[in-house]
Amino acid sequence: MAVIDDLAGELARLPGIGRKTALRLTYHLLRRPPEEVKRLARALESVADRVRPCGICGNLTEDQPCAYCTNPRRDPTLICVVEESSDIGAIERTGEYRGLYHVLGGRLSPLEGIGPQELNIRTLLDRVAPGSGGSGGVREVIVATNPSVEGEATAVYLLQLVRPLGVVVTRLARGLPVGGDLEYADGVTIAEALAGRREL
Amino acid sequence: MAVIDDLAGELARLPGIGRKTALRLTYHLLRRPPEEVKRLARALESVADRVRPCGICGNLTEDQPCAYCTNPRRDPTLICVVEESSDIGAIERTGEYRGLYHVLGGRLSPLEGIGPQELNIRTLLDRVAPGSGGSGGVREVIVATNPSVEGEATAVYLLQLVRPLGVVVTRLARGLPVGGDLEYADGVTIAEALAGRREL
Repeated sequence: MAVIDDLAGELARLPGIGRKTALRLTYHLLRRPPEEVKRLARALESVADRVRPCGICGNLTEDQPCAYCTNPRRDPTLICVVEESSDIGAIERTGEYRGLYHVLGGRLSPLEGIGPQELNIRTLLDRVAPGSGGSGGVREVIVATNPSVEGEATAVYLLQLVRPLGVVVTRLARGLPVGGDLEYADGVTIAEALAGRREL
Repeated sequence: MAVIDDLAGELARLPGIGRKTALRLTYHLLRRPPEEVKRLARALESVADRVRPCGICGNLTEDQPCAYCTNPRRDPTLICVVEESSDIGAIERTGEYRGLYHVLGGRLSPLEGIGPQELNIRTLLDRVAPGSGGSGGVREVIVATNPSVEGEATAVYLLQLVRPLGVVVTRLARGLPVGGDLEYADGVTIAEALAGRREL
């Protein structure tokens, strides 16, 4: 049973997958054609072998630099700072953003021992600072960290570092989510929506 | 992004894992050390390469025959018939069963196109039938299919085939689950518990 238990054990290390789910997945895979299981194994191998952070923006990619950094049709004067590579997908799906990205690799969290040294902040400043060897010419840094306490703290920290470099620093608007219901919105969100109200 | 999308696509094929969860798992794996991801890949490869149904009982195993069939301390006169290999674990955890197993590989389900030909029924009859080349001497077949409509139908079907071979056919008792609450038990279960009542 060793290999079966091994697989269940490895699957149980994934987030949100407990021992029972891992066993269920394992027995599901055991019923599939071996070729299908190997396809999953190969997909994992490829990711482990070939995906690395982009040397410029920190986005996880197989190409160096990544497809965003090398795309001549993206606006190089605009950098959107996100916590994780996965956040890029959420922004890209809107189809509304044509600038570049910068992936911090997390957010400041003193409780978890994550300080500025643990994040890709140095590389962001290098991209923004004029005459640092980067292409320069960055006009605006959009801080798109999560609307959580740590995300906010990270945004404020970045603001203090980036604004002195002479670029505009913005953050995503807070307010009621589209399709949401005022009755069920939390007080903090309503307060933010009030403070950010716009004339019709 | 091809390898990242590939992995998310393969993960999304697993039961209970949708596109969003697959993406979340993918990005979790991207943040782990490549060695850890490769360990999962290797566990999958090993299972795909080495796990096959036991030639005797149909249990999924790396050894031929499986550890139950070759264990001289198991009682060969007793065969417990289960739907899936994973059911064996549930019975073994009770520590109350010392006989052998037989894995059907499913249950009769005409709606899903699963008839007797799709299940390991022929091999069960070979094991039970005296003088068929098997070790013979089977005394009792315990039908431990699931307490579902299909499981019941499968049990009745097996009964008709196995009893004429001169062995006792039993099935697991129905009744109130231990720790259950009479008030919340469904009527069918209570009826089964009544019909199966035993003198104290």
